[in-house]
This record gives sequence, C-alpha cells and structure tokens, in this order.
Amino acid sequence: MAPALLLALTTVASSEQAQQLARGLVEQRLAACVQIQVIESVYRWDGALQQDSEWRLLIKTTQARWSALQDWLLAQHPYAVPALLAWPASQAAPAFADWVRGECLP
Amino acid sequence: MAPALLLALTTVASSEQAQQLARGLVEQRLAACVQIQVIESVYRWDGALQQDSEWRLLIKTTQARWSALQDWLLAQHPYAVPALLAWPASQAAPAFADWVRGECLP
Amino acid sequence: MAPALLLALTTVASSEQAQQLARGLVEQRLAACVQIQVIESVYRWDGALQQDSEWRLLIKTTQARWSALQDWLLAQHPYAVPALLAWPASQAAPAFADWVRGECLP
Repeated sequence: MAPALLLALTTVASSEQAQQLARGLVEQRLAACVQIQVIESVYRWDGALQQDSEWRLLIKTTQARWSALQDWLLAQHPYAVPALLAWPASQAAPAFADWVRGECLP
Repeated sequence: MAPALLLALTTVASSEQAQQLARGLVEQRLAACVQIQVIESVYRWDGALQQDSEWRLLIKTTQARWSALQDWLLAQHPYAVPALLAWPASQAAPAFADWVRGECLP
Repeated sequence: MAPALLLALTTVASSEQAQQLARGLVEQRLAACVQIQVIESVYRWDGALQQDSEWRLLIKTTQARWSALQDWLLAQHPYAVPALLAWPASQAAPAFADWVRGECLP
C-alpha cells in the first residue's frame, strides 16, 4: 500500500520566519519534520523582475493533515499571497512512513 | 479541483548561468518563479565518478506551459544533455495557484 | 509515454556520510545522479523539538530500481529510521530520461 505521505513547499523572507513556521508546524503536529534552506528567488512582481534571498521550507506531512496545515500556514504566514503547494510521495521506507504518520496525528 | 501546477528541475554549472535561465524563464512567462540554490552533484560521466558544484533551478509553472518551457530551455541550456524533469502539484493554496497561472499566461 | 523516472530524498548527519551514500548509489547503478545540499532540520524526537544541520540527498533514479535502492540504502544508512521517500517524474527531457535509464541498468 502506498503511504499517504505528502511533501509541501513554502518560502519566507528570513531565517527567523522560517524557523518560527517550522517549529510551529511540528509543535502543532501538522508536520513530522521541516527542512529549511536559503535560496535565491526570481519572479515578477508589480510588472518588474525581482530577485531576493528567501528561505524555503520542505514540509513532510500526511494527506490527512493538508487541510489543517493549509489553514494554519495561511493564517501564520507573513506574505499576502504565500507560495504553498504540495505533492504526494508514491513510495517511502515503511518505518519512516510510520514515524511521519505518528507525528502527524492531531 | 486540483490546480494544474507543475514543478520542474534543471541544473547548470554556474551562478551566472542559473540567473540567466531563471530570468529568461520568468521574462518569457514560462514560469511564475524560479528558485536557485547551489548543490554538490555526484554522477558517472565517461565511465568515471564525477563530483561538481552545480546550481539547481526549481521552476514553478503550469502543465500547459511544459512543452514551450522544454523547447526554450533545451535551446538555451549550455549542456549537451540538460537535466530536466517535472512533476505535478496535487494541492496548492488557491491564491498562489491563481498567481502562478496568471504569470504563466503567454 | 511518460518516462518512469523517480526522485527520492534521504538525509544524513554529515557531508562525509552524504558523499559516501551518493557515491555508493551511483557506483551500484542505483541512481544516475545524486545532488547534495546542507539543510536545517526541525522535528520532534523523544518528545522534544530538535533542530540540526543535515545533508539532504536528492536521488534521480527509475521506478524499476526503487526496491533495490531502498534495500541498499536502509542497509548502508547510519540512522535507525532513515528518512526515505520518493515520487515519480511525470515529464522529462527525452535525452536526459534516456541517460538516467541507461545509468540505472543493473
């Protein structure tokens, strides 16, 4: 049986915001673990090309927690239109999948 | 309805090449945003194990733009056999999905 | 035809472990290439919030090699419960997909 694990991505503007969101997601049991890394973002805003350093969060959670995770993250996130998208894992090591599922129980 | 968002990855050999491709993708409306980060790549080439620093681009676009994105990237990319693969997002915050779709309109 | 390429993620506690696993995966033809990057991990362990630097491996392989890759990685990985999950690519540049498939032939 494919484990119902979900990977989600969001980005914020500082290391402090990234750590605050990551810790909140784990404390709220909305994620089993969150990985933070700095990236360089290129995008268009107000008609002009922008380039900024951002901090990206890779969130490991379950399909069952997506709705609650989205609600919590949109309420907490400092951006007006936060980047937030997700995709399912098709395979996972069984012991790791069990650990993620256990950590994400409300 | 699941948003038809697509994540794509490619890598190049320098920060300059990464920024040039990222800016081109956004300017051509082939991507809403591109995130750049340095990585260490391990692979086999000419029968020997190689290890190099590379710059990875994570590209956020739509399924509808994949074909044009692939054509443009293969024409622009400095490698003979560029790494390029993609996978769909199953879920996204609605306002963010709308923004990506709007940015990727030709 | 969608290429049967697979992306997989795992994490380890040091750059040395990351390079050892990455080189082993390519040498064993369990992966065509592996990308290493340092991240900051946030998770709960023994009931308390943890935050550590880790090295993440993004592994590019094929669906056909998943089972052998999982067996090898769980035997080699220094953690008791290694993070290991994967998802399929839906699209890829044809020449790159051919290269990955060729590299992953046992």
